[in-house]
Amino acid sequence: LSNIKLIGNSPAEPIIPDTVYDPKQRYLTLRTNQKAFGALKLRSEVSFLCRQVLRDEGFTEVETPLLFKSTPEGAREFLVPTRNQNMMYALPQSPQQYKQVLMASGILKYYQFAKCFRDEALRSDRQPEFTQLDLEMGFANGSDVQRLVERLLKRIWWEFHGIELGPFPVLTYRTAMNEYGSDKPDMRYDLKIIDINDIIDSYLPPLQREYVHRFYKYELISVPNMKMHDGTFNTITKKLKEIGNLGEKMTGDQREIYRAHIYNQATRSRFRDNLKAIAPHLSEEILDKVMEDLVNRKLLRINSLVFLAKRKRESNSGGSTLMGDFRKALASVLEQKGYLTIKGHKFAWITRFPLFTKVEPDDTEPGQSSRNGYKSTHHPFTAPLNDHVTTTFLHPLRALGQHYDIVYNGVELGGGSTRIHDALLQRAILEEVLDVPASKLKDFQHLFDMLASGCPPHAGLALGFDRLVAMLMGSNSIRDVIAFPKNNNGVDPMVDSPSLVTPSQLEPYGILMENPPAVE
Amino acid sequence: LSNIKLIGNSPAEPIIPDTVYDPKQRYLTLRTNQKAFGALKLRSEVSFLCRQVLRDEGFTEVETPLLFKSTPEGAREFLVPTRNQNMMYALPQSPQQYKQVLMASGILKYYQFAKCFRDEALRSDRQPEFTQLDLEMGFANGSDVQRLVERLLKRIWWEFHGIELGPFPVLTYRTAMNEYGSDKPDMRYDLKIIDINDIIDSYLPPLQREYVHRFYKYELISVPNMKMHDGTFNTITKKLKEIGNLGEKMTGDQREIYRAHIYNQATRSRFRDNLKAIAPHLSEEILDKVMEDLVNRKLLRINSLVFLAKRKRESNSGGSTLMGDFRKALASVLEQKGYLTIKGHKFAWITRFPLFTKVEPDDTEPGQSSRNGYKSTHHPFTAPLNDHVTTTFLHPLRALGQHYDIVYNGVELGGGSTRIHDALLQRAILEEVLDVPASKLKDFQHLFDMLASGCPPHAGLALGFDRLVAMLMGSNSIRDVIAFPKNNNGVDPMVDSPSLVTPSQLEPYGILMENPPAVE
Repeated sequence: LSNIKLIGNSPAEPIIPDTVYDPKQRYLTLRTNQKAFGALKLRSEVSFLCRQVLRDEGFTEVETPLLFKSTPEGAREFLVPTRNQNMMYALPQSPQQYKQVLMASGILKYYQFAKCFRDEALRSDRQPEFTQLDLEMGFANGSDVQRLVERLLKRIWWEFHGIELGPFPVLTYRTAMNEYGSDKPDMRYDLKIIDINDIIDSYLPPLQREYVHRFYKYELISVPNMKMHDGTFNTITKKLKEIGNLGEKMTGDQREIYRAHIYNQATRSRFRDNLKAIAPHLSEEILDKVMEDLVNRKLLRINSLVFLAKRKRESNSGGSTLMGDFRKALASVLEQKGYLTIKGHKFAWITRFPLFTKVEPDDTEPGQSSRNGYKSTHHPFTAPLNDHVTTTFLHPLRALGQHYDIVYNGVELGGGSTRIHDALLQRAILEEVLDVPASKLKDFQHLFDMLASGCPPHAGLALGFDRLVAMLMGSNSIRDVIAFPKNNNGVDPMVDSPSLVTPSQLEPYGILMENPPAVE
Repeated sequence: LSNIKLIGNSPAEPIIPDTVYDPKQRYLTLRTNQKAFGALKLRSEVSFLCRQVLRDEGFTEVETPLLFKSTPEGAREFLVPTRNQNMMYALPQSPQQYKQVLMASGILKYYQFAKCFRDEALRSDRQPEFTQLDLEMGFANGSDVQRLVERLLKRIWWEFHGIELGPFPVLTYRTAMNEYGSDKPDMRYDLKIIDINDIIDSYLPPLQREYVHRFYKYELISVPNMKMHDGTFNTITKKLKEIGNLGEKMTGDQREIYRAHIYNQATRSRFRDNLKAIAPHLSEEILDKVMEDLVNRKLLRINSLVFLAKRKRESNSGGSTLMGDFRKALASVLEQKGYLTIKGHKFAWITRFPLFTKVEPDDTEPGQSSRNGYKSTHHPFTAPLNDHVTTTFLHPLRALGQHYDIVYNGVELGGGSTRIHDALLQRAILEEVLDVPASKLKDFQHLFDMLASGCPPHAGLALGFDRLVAMLMGSNSIRDVIAFPKNNNGVDPMVDSPSLVTPSQLEPYGILMENPPAVE
């Protein structure tokens, strides 16, 4: 060393690795924290690999506009004022419409790393802007898309974890909700929810079977071989009380009721009483038979931890049942207590989702809800199952759609569907089922025209790319894989966006502030 | 063929290749027009190749936020209202600030295919949203960036044209303006502009040389071996009259004056008269000497087409001189008449741009202009030449900056600079030279903090990716390479965006329409 040249200034405070820096100093976190820095490198590598794989598969990356327009479907959009009076762009929540147009344009294998925007109440791990790996295939159906995405994900997990994944299991939405109490089942552990309706039903007089259990489901989780007095049961019941109404009496309003037991001879009668409490229509004789049957099936065994539950059958409500939430909490306690190890990489496809969902009275989400009381479970472009087209119009809530989600370790990584490619069917679903008013229907005119122009059948999917990278590096937060994430208030603390604008800035757009700031 | 299954409807009208479809039916154009379709394929392939090359060079692709904030520099931004009263995001015109922050974050080789937005009066070939291949390098300077970009462009031209390009010539801004009359010189043909000031000066008394030509430049283009009577001269003079004041007498207001001749014995005296007319201070004796010298230098030859010009020296005015515009028009006529072939692939770097430009009285562009009467020629983060730091503050208009443009066949493909990496210098330029008011200066606080945290010297560049692909396929319009381009009014005719919004849509944002539509 013969010469030192100063090329810049250094800060007064020394920079120390792994200090927790203020989010305003995001650059110091990135500079000093190996995990934060590595996340950006990983993200770059994963996106490159995806492009490489998709290109090899014959896909074309197409950039679609971000200055789009406000449409009646979907969640809340950000608006972008223009100088053209009262005309505004909207930022897209997804490139859905444009990518369908690409199918009618002859780009039969399309993908894009698409920037998407959602102006919604921010939950803990949501961002107002996010990235989707968006893709669509023409002359293809959902299973073509699923096979492709499976190849892609296997390749990614192989390259970054050295793991060769087997075929992804496919579960229907109904199976997932019944067996795991969730449409995003974590399949790294078993703990399946057992439907005991069949058992109960088998002891009912035939006529009663027809109507008794049309509205309620009886479910059970049974964990064998609990050790006594290791505190597990108390921890679990405490935790479960935080989640739901464990052990509470069911009233008319309560959709779900749960009771937990360690089953043994001493608690046998308590279990029987609870079963009777939630199924008061069963005679003492039938109760005895059901109990015996549950014992024979080894669902009631000495020192088993048993959860008993009754819930309304509401398969369209989506998300998870309370029993599903219990299952997850249970797993985490069992892991903590050494009964279970939660690890591995479990992908699954969830299919055959209900096409529509009931609009709840307190549903204030704009867009998807309709005057008919239904909303699209995902979006109104999803095709019904081929044999559910009639049902779609006669009993919308019973119709199943060609939607599919890809789930990893209990987290939804993305979803897609086979789309409607028939202009008349598309129009009828918007107009008749969703009752979109004529004034809004014309916003879809380009879509009807495009479908009528001879559009091939097509299907696609979007992967939450932030989520994908986070999962890949074993992180629960997408913030860990975003260079400059926004906080829960939608604020980028580093540059301090969004910022206060002045009334004069709004002038060119012909808009005024409702409450202008006191001083400009 | 044993079975035909109908999988969709076809339109009533037959679809015929190469029909010119309405922009509303963009999908039919893409489906039937090989060039339009091929452009999207090419674009996808070029972006993939760029990523491949940059990854091999050790670059990391980082996505930076699109929901940014309004800042005082730059052209017009689009605003995005939020539910947080009077707080708005702005869509970025470039990721400039974020990418500089990445330099302080240790991502020393950054790139991104960045979506950029500009809310400006749309000129014929501008789009409100466009894509830049944006990159930045830490512990690097402009020539590192130039060498990298040169490797990248050579690779692209090799892959897509099979052409091995030689080293790109480097011209200073001054040379480009003097020799080609443009900061985007088309170097596929020679037709250089000859500066004849030195010739004239050499015959002036020494004292006069000091002041006579401080404000004006005398220039000449000479094209030898014109055929007589083939109409070229008339076509040229006609075309040139459309562009500028050819042959007009100079008045006080006119910056530039031009005269064109076919030089021969008969027109010799006319040429001499014209020279005298634009340089009336020259004595008859000096005029004779200059004429003789021009002849000896073969600038005046029998049957040469000669342009004579006088213009104000205004090197900072950028863009092109009238003589530069003439040169381009001249080349196109000469090509048309068979004197010249314009083809090939000529890249060039243009360097040493003036750091600041005078604000013209009619300059209504917001942002960059300052109360001091200067604006940044490019942006306020460009570093002055190392030996121009003092000049920057004493004579801002004389200071040259470390900016560079990459030009291809007379079109600017992109530009970049070595950035200021010293917090104090950055602050002083904004505060003292550009006279940014304190209230706006605080919007740059994160930048000052970041630079003060020990930020390495860095330089970068952004390539207009739409333009690059258009040039690569020999198209003059970026619309040809955009899947869903907007028209001159910023309208996407296919989906009809932007669209009319209702006052109620604006409610959550606390903004009102100045002139609400009559009926909602």
